Amino acid sequence: MTNENNANKNNENTGHANKDNKNTGHTKWFAAKGDQSDVVLSTRVRLARNLADAPFPSRLDAQGKQRVTQRVRDAVQNSELNYIDMARLPRLEAFSLAERRLISPEFAAGIPGSGLLLSGDEDVSVMLCEEDHIRIQVLRAGLALRPAYDAADQIDDALGRGLPYAFDENLGYLTQCPTNLGTAMRASVMLHLPGLSSLGRAARLSESIAKLGLTMRGAFGEGSEAEGALYQLSNQVTLGLEESAALENLQAITMQIAEQERRAAAECLRQPQLEDQIWRAWGILQNARRMESREAIHLLSLARMGAARGLLPLPAETLSHLMTLTQPATLSLTEAPPLDAEKRDAKRAELIRNHILSKV
Amino acid sequence: MTNENNANKNNENTGHANKDNKNTGHTKWFAAKGDQSDVVLSTRVRLARNLADAPFPSRLDAQGKQRVTQRVRDAVQNSELNYIDMARLPRLEAFSLAERRLISPEFAAGIPGSGLLLSGDEDVSVMLCEEDHIRIQVLRAGLALRPAYDAADQIDDALGRGLPYAFDENLGYLTQCPTNLGTAMRASVMLHLPGLSSLGRAARLSESIAKLGLTMRGAFGEGSEAEGALYQLSNQVTLGLEESAALENLQAITMQIAEQERRAAAECLRQPQLEDQIWRAWGILQNARRMESREAIHLLSLARMGAARGLLPLPAETLSHLMTLTQPATLSLTEAPPLDAEKRDAKRAELIRNHILSKV
Repeated sequence: MTNENNANKNNENTGHANKDNKNTGHTKWFAAKGDQSDVVLSTRVRLARNLADAPFPSRLDAQGKQRVTQRVRDAVQNSELNYIDMARLPRLEAFSLAERRLISPEFAAGIPGSGLLLSGDEDVSVMLCEEDHIRIQVLRAGLALRPAYDAADQIDDALGRGLPYAFDENLGYLTQCPTNLGTAMRASVMLHLPGLSSLGRAARLSESIAKLGLTMRGAFGEGSEAEGALYQLSNQVTLGLEESAALENLQAITMQIAEQERRAAAECLRQPQLEDQIWRAWGILQNARRMESREAIHLLSLARMGAARGLLPLPAETLSHLMTLTQPATLSLTEAPPLDAEKRDAKRAELIRNHILSKV
Repeated sequence: MTNENNANKNNENTGHANKDNKNTGHTKWFAAKGDQSDVVLSTRVRLARNLADAPFPSRLDAQGKQRVTQRVRDAVQNSELNYIDMARLPRLEAFSLAERRLISPEFAAGIPGSGLLLSGDEDVSVMLCEEDHIRIQVLRAGLALRPAYDAADQIDDALGRGLPYAFDENLGYLTQCPTNLGTAMRASVMLHLPGLSSLGRAARLSESIAKLGLTMRGAFGEGSEAEGALYQLSNQVTLGLEESAALENLQAITMQIAEQERRAAAECLRQPQLEDQIWRAWGILQNARRMESREAIHLLSLARMGAARGLLPLPAETLSHLMTLTQPATLSLTEAPPLDAEKRDAKRAELIRNHILSKV
């Protein structure tokens, strides 16, 4: 079988990330409601794998990367994953994929010879020749560590049947960066912590968590309290700890943080100032005619807090979904030519209004 | 007939400004729609009169004022006006009357021996022993100078039949302050000029108007551009100019300003920033849980501009009416004990939400 044939079987789609999603910027799994979804927006499990018979990507030129990419494509030829040639994907679409957390920003910027496998639902993505030869990612709504891991594990098994993985009895899976050695698994949850953040407790929480072998950091920006009160919590230890143990640890701590957030939110909502702020955010989101990205995140975060605590009459998921949909590249996805900043602010406000209107 | 009997015929109501209005703070004429009402909120005509056989109020003690007050009450015994003993009226109600422009702030502060005659619709008020013995005021919605004057003139005629007015062939009606000599008529219109104000043209307009024998000043505050973009335009000349001529002059200039405002508003609304501000104001007004008086005036003014120009789906009158209803004393009118500032801010926000909800 030639490479040409394989390419066709892989539903090659070089021009666009995903035809179905193109006109909406919708990441389908994201709008769904999951477990603990008042606090946990989403779960992501990522497995890094490398081929034993090829140098790490950093030591490969474009042709070398292209050959590895092709070998992995061949190994998944009968799967439901679509192949995307990253070199031929418009940058705007690539950046939108990064905004939707399907690929890394570095990968979106363009690495010659790299490729992407993406499921139609956008819940599975496999980056080829990013930092490692293979990075399998599975995304789920809410807190769903085990299901996400199981799905990633299945893809890993399928790939492993056809490809010679770099594996060492003592070090486990070999990865370019030594911090990934061992399971090479990074599991993370995206948390919305407006209560803890508003009380100024999120920064302190990050410090305590570091001692438990986990990392918590703001999803947007680098300030002491994250923009939009969105935090990503992930396992840090990959060596000497089995996947199940790492997942259970992350699960238990996530549940504890969620409980702390609920108490903090209840405390905040007893302050009339915050209740007023939430309602004002809600009024502005439904009426503004232009809105910058930063303000949108801030107001959507306030409104999401209100929705998660039963104050506002819509699902919290609608608001977190809007946090993604209103990111600059995703927002411009349907427009030709791409929007300038001013038109983007107008379109952002319009999208928010219409999206909320369709959900209340 | 004794004074006691007269008092009864005058529908004496010493405890409250007006029973019907007490629970709403509603000034009935105000919510109505009048001519030019996109720009002109209301019209007021005031006539000052004094008795020939009594010193001006400033030279009367409380008993002396009381005697004059009683003589005027006797003269209007068969009218539809209710008598209010200002000394016995709770201060909160007095200040609310001032906020609704039915009496002057000085009169509301309390002048021993003074009294007030007030129609059930609150469109006619007669202050007794304020600066002059008699100050007849007629209020109308929109631009209605002639009807307001005619109504005031009728009351004036009725009073003049029973009372010896201080009148001089050369000086006309004699008044305490020489600036009122002559017709002793002050006609004014309340204008909403958000367009001119937003373009920074209102201050300059005030200057030009001064040369035409009129005065224009901010209704709230003393800044160069008035708070809420509300301006009061009134005739300045009372000597050597007949009432009709003064009214026609004021009418013509009001019409010109209204036209200028419409053009300015159209110019402003072509700026996307202002459109956005109007919609945001609209969203906040419908959702905020607490709001200070100053912010309320500002947002109501923006929303009124949107309503007057067909952008927002409610009558502009609803919003100007709210500017009055949300003033501190009027807002506290129904509460016992009177509200503190924080509760007032919460009640103000609630009143605005409910009032708008009932009109859209």
